[in-house]
Amino acid sequence: MEKVRLGIVGLGAQGGLYAGFLADGKVENMVIGAICDIDPAKKEWAAEKYPDVPFYEDYRDMLDSGDVDAVVTCVPHYLHPEIGVEALKREIHALVEKPAGVYTKQVRELNDYAAKKPHLTFGIVFNQRTNPLYQKVKEIIDNGEVGQIRRTNWMITTWWRPQGYYDSSAWRATWGEEGGGVLVNQAPHQLDLLQWICGMPEKVYSNVKYGYQRNIAVEDEVTALLDYGNGATGVFITCTHDVIGTDRFEILGDKGKIVVDDSKKVTIKRLLKPESELSDSMSMQDVMKIFMGGNQSDIYTEEVLEFESEWGAQHIAVLENFTAAIVEGTPLLAPGSDGIHGVTLANAIHLSSWLDKEIEIAFDEELYLAELNKRIDEEKTAPVTF
Amino acid sequence: MEKVRLGIVGLGAQGGLYAGFLADGKVENMVIGAICDIDPAKKEWAAEKYPDVPFYEDYRDMLDSGDVDAVVTCVPHYLHPEIGVEALKREIHALVEKPAGVYTKQVRELNDYAAKKPHLTFGIVFNQRTNPLYQKVKEIIDNGEVGQIRRTNWMITTWWRPQGYYDSSAWRATWGEEGGGVLVNQAPHQLDLLQWICGMPEKVYSNVKYGYQRNIAVEDEVTALLDYGNGATGVFITCTHDVIGTDRFEILGDKGKIVVDDSKKVTIKRLLKPESELSDSMSMQDVMKIFMGGNQSDIYTEEVLEFESEWGAQHIAVLENFTAAIVEGTPLLAPGSDGIHGVTLANAIHLSSWLDKEIEIAFDEELYLAELNKRIDEEKTAPVTF
Repeated sequence: MEKVRLGIVGLGAQGGLYAGFLADGKVENMVIGAICDIDPAKKEWAAEKYPDVPFYEDYRDMLDSGDVDAVVTCVPHYLHPEIGVEALKREIHALVEKPAGVYTKQVRELNDYAAKKPHLTFGIVFNQRTNPLYQKVKEIIDNGEVGQIRRTNWMITTWWRPQGYYDSSAWRATWGEEGGGVLVNQAPHQLDLLQWICGMPEKVYSNVKYGYQRNIAVEDEVTALLDYGNGATGVFITCTHDVIGTDRFEILGDKGKIVVDDSKKVTIKRLLKPESELSDSMSMQDVMKIFMGGNQSDIYTEEVLEFESEWGAQHIAVLENFTAAIVEGTPLLAPGSDGIHGVTLANAIHLSSWLDKEIEIAFDEELYLAELNKRIDEEKTAPVTF
Repeated sequence: MEKVRLGIVGLGAQGGLYAGFLADGKVENMVIGAICDIDPAKKEWAAEKYPDVPFYEDYRDMLDSGDVDAVVTCVPHYLHPEIGVEALKREIHALVEKPAGVYTKQVRELNDYAAKKPHLTFGIVFNQRTNPLYQKVKEIIDNGEVGQIRRTNWMITTWWRPQGYYDSSAWRATWGEEGGGVLVNQAPHQLDLLQWICGMPEKVYSNVKYGYQRNIAVEDEVTALLDYGNGATGVFITCTHDVIGTDRFEILGDKGKIVVDDSKKVTIKRLLKPESELSDSMSMQDVMKIFMGGNQSDIYTEEVLEFESEWGAQHIAVLENFTAAIVEGTPLLAPGSDGIHGVTLANAIHLSSWLDKEIEIAFDEELYLAELNKRIDEEKTAPVTF
C-alpha cells in the first residue's frame, strides 16, 4: 500500500476538517479516498471543493466501492459502532470518532467484532492523548513518581454552550439522536484521559441535572463521585453553563501530587519520602516546625511545566498515528477498543442519577439500554436499536 | 459590669491560649475569672503561672462560686453542650468551643435551653468568621454580586496529622471520646464557613474512609456531595493524610465566580450580564469569537484580593466580640445557636457513609445517635449519653 485512502463518513465540521488536512497534504501517507454524506448540500459543496474525490450517499456503497482502505466516522454518536463493524467486515480499517458509541452494549459489539480482525487497524479519535501535557502526566503516574493514587479530582467546565447552540440542530441534546448531553458530547476526552492516566473506578455515584440551565432533555450539569475500590476516591465535575470555565485536575498520590491548571500548566510536587514514612517517623512537634516555621522544601520538591496548546495538530497526529499503524504496524496511541471505558463512565454516571444509587462499574448493560430507551420514548422518537 | 470575668474550663492548648491572651490584657473588657481542670498537673501549672486566679477541679463548683460571669468550654467535644447548659442555668454567659457538640441531638438541647435565656450571651468560637477574607466572600455572595449560587466546591486538606498525633492521647480519634475524626476536629471551621456563606444543602451523599491512611477508628478521608435542593450542587473534600495540602474553595454563581486559594487569595470574576442572558443572546459564532479570539474581558471583570493570615488575632477577635455582646449588646458574629449547622453537616456525612445512601439534611437525630453508639460499643467504651 502506497498511501492509505481514507473514506470520510459525514462531511460536517469534523469531517470537513479532516478533508482539509488531507487535501493540504498535512498527513503523511494518507489521502482522501472518498467522501460520504446523506445531505445533498454537502454533496454540492464536496463537488465544488473536491471535484476529483468520489462521493457516496450511502456509506455501505462507499465501503463496497474499492475506493477506500480506511474510514473515519464523523456522524452522530449512535452510528459509530455500526459503521465501524461494517468497515471491518469488508477488511477496511476503522477510525471511530469519540465517543465510541452512546451505550456500552453497542460499543462492546464493535470491540468484539474488531477482536476477530486483529490484522485490521481499529482506532479512536482521542486526540487529547497526543497532547504532550497529558502524556507527561501519564508518564509520571505510570513511573510511580507520585506513588499510588489516593484521590483524583477533575473540574472541567470550559465548554460553555449557549441555548442557541442547542437550538441549532434538532438532533442536538436529545436522547434519541445524540444520546446525552455534556457527558457524550463535550466530556468524552476528559473521561478518557482520566481513566487512561488514573485507571477505572469500581463504583460511581452521581448527581446529574438534566436541562438545569438550558432548555434541553439531556444533562448540562454533572458531579460524579468515583470509588476506585482500593481506598482511592475521585470527583469529576462538568457542565456547559459556566461561561468562566474552570479546568483543574488534581491527583494525590502517596508520594506526591500533580495539579494541572487549564490543560496548560502542570505542577508536580514529589515527596522526598513516601507519606506513610513521614507519618510513621514524625512527631507533632516536627510537624509544627515544618508548617509553622514554613520550610516545606524539607519534605518535597516542586516542578512546574508549561505547555502550549495546539488543537489542530492533535487531530493531524491522530491521523498520522492511525496511518503509521496501518502501514508500519506502529502501536496505536488510542486503540479503538479503549473507547468503551469513557462510554462506561458516562453510562454509569447517567445510571446512578437515574436509579439514585451508587453503581458498580460492571453495571447491567441491558438495564442501561432499557433506561435510555425510556427517555427516548419520552421524547417520542424512534427506539435506540435500529 | 466593669470587666467580664471569664471562667476557662479546660487548661489544654486552647484554654492555655485564652488564659495567656487575658493575662496579657489583650482582650478589652475581659479578665480571667477562674480556671478549671481535672488534671492535677494543670492545677500545679496554673498555681505557678496564675497564682491569683481561683482554680477548680469541678466546673460546677466554678459556676457556683460567683467568680465568673462567663465561661469558655475548652474540653472534649462531647462536653460542650452540657457545660453550656449548666452555665446558662446559673445565669452565666457561655462561649462554646467548636464543634458545638458531637451529635445534633445534644446541640439542639443546648440551643433549646439557650433560647429560653435570650438575655444571656451564647456564642461559639468560629474564629474563621472574623477572617476578613471570608467576611468579604460572604459579603459578595450576600450582595448578589455573583448572583445565585449554582455550585460550591471546597477541597481543604491542609491539616496533615501523622500517626504520632493520633497516638499522643488515648481519647483522640475515638468514637467514644472524640466522636469522630477530621469532620469533628479539623474541618468544623470550613463546614461552618461553607454554610455561613453558601447556606445549608438539603441532601448529602458521602464517601468516607475510616482509618484509611492512619491506624484509627474514625474518618481520615471525606468526599461529600451536596445538593441544595434548588439545582445547586456542591462538593466538600477533606482528609488528614495529604502532607502537601490543598485549600481551594470555588463558588459558581449565575453572575460570576469566586475562587479562594489557600485562604489567602480571592479571585472574583463578575459577569457583565447574567449567564442566562448571555446564553439567550449569543450565537455559537459569537461564542467562537470570544473563546477562540481570546478577549474574555468582553464578558467579565476580574478582581484579585490578597489577605494576610493572622491566626492568633482571630481568637482575640472572638473573645472581644463575645465581651462586647455581653457589655454593650453588640451582635455576635457567631451566635452559639449557629453551631448546630456544622454538626448537622458532619453527622449527615457520617450517616450517609454508614447507611450507604443519600441523606436528607433533616435526618433522624435518634438514628444518628444509635449508629454512633454502635461504633462506640464496638470500641468497647462507655455509651454516649452519660
